[in-house]
Amino acid sequence: MIAKTPIPPYYAVIFTSERTDSNEGYQQTANRMVELAQQQPGYLGQESAHEVVGITISYWDSLEAIKNWKKNTEHLTAQTMGRQEWYSTYKTRICKVERDYDFHK
Amino acid sequence: MIAKTPIPPYYAVIFTSERTDSNEGYQQTANRMVELAQQQPGYLGQESAHEVVGITISYWDSLEAIKNWKKNTEHLTAQTMGRQEWYSTYKTRICKVERDYDFHK
Repeated sequence: MIAKTPIPPYYAVIFTSERTDSNEGYQQTANRMVELAQQQPGYLGQESAHEVVGITISYWDSLEAIKNWKKNTEHLTAQTMGRQEWYSTYKTRICKVERDYDFHK
Repeated sequence: MIAKTPIPPYYAVIFTSERTDSNEGYQQTANRMVELAQQQPGYLGQESAHEVVGITISYWDSLEAIKNWKKNTEHLTAQTMGRQEWYSTYKTRICKVERDYDFHK
């Protein structure tokens, strides 16, 4: 589903990653992080897809909200597990969405 | 593959879409658009993944470069085909990447 986001400006965090062979606890933690993020102040929505590269984009109403999510205790543990177990590489980009437009059939 | 992008600031175009059942010419055009975009001034790279939602993020060195790509003749034809045939809905977000960081095992 395409995330329903408000009129810009707002923020996007683009998380692109490549996985290791370890699936231990991955899906459970990934689901839990989505659930947690949804409860986080400033959270606006998320889109996810995975092929060779995994892409998760989460949308936020401020840089402050992103900072708070990054230091959420349970999320910090997941980040550590990600580096130790699940990801061979990742890149996080913090972006300001300046303009958007859409199309519906 | 995670796109190799320069030190911020630069720009990201997040294109999220949901497909119709029509595949007529889709993959060929999608491949051609990647090829064309790579020749476009200011193009920095791209990441793509598809599940329920398709996500393509292309990276650019300026808003000017994005504008020029949007009005590329062959790309304009593909956009029309996209609306007529391939997409039931899509959303395009123009973003300024303000900060990034990465991890490698």
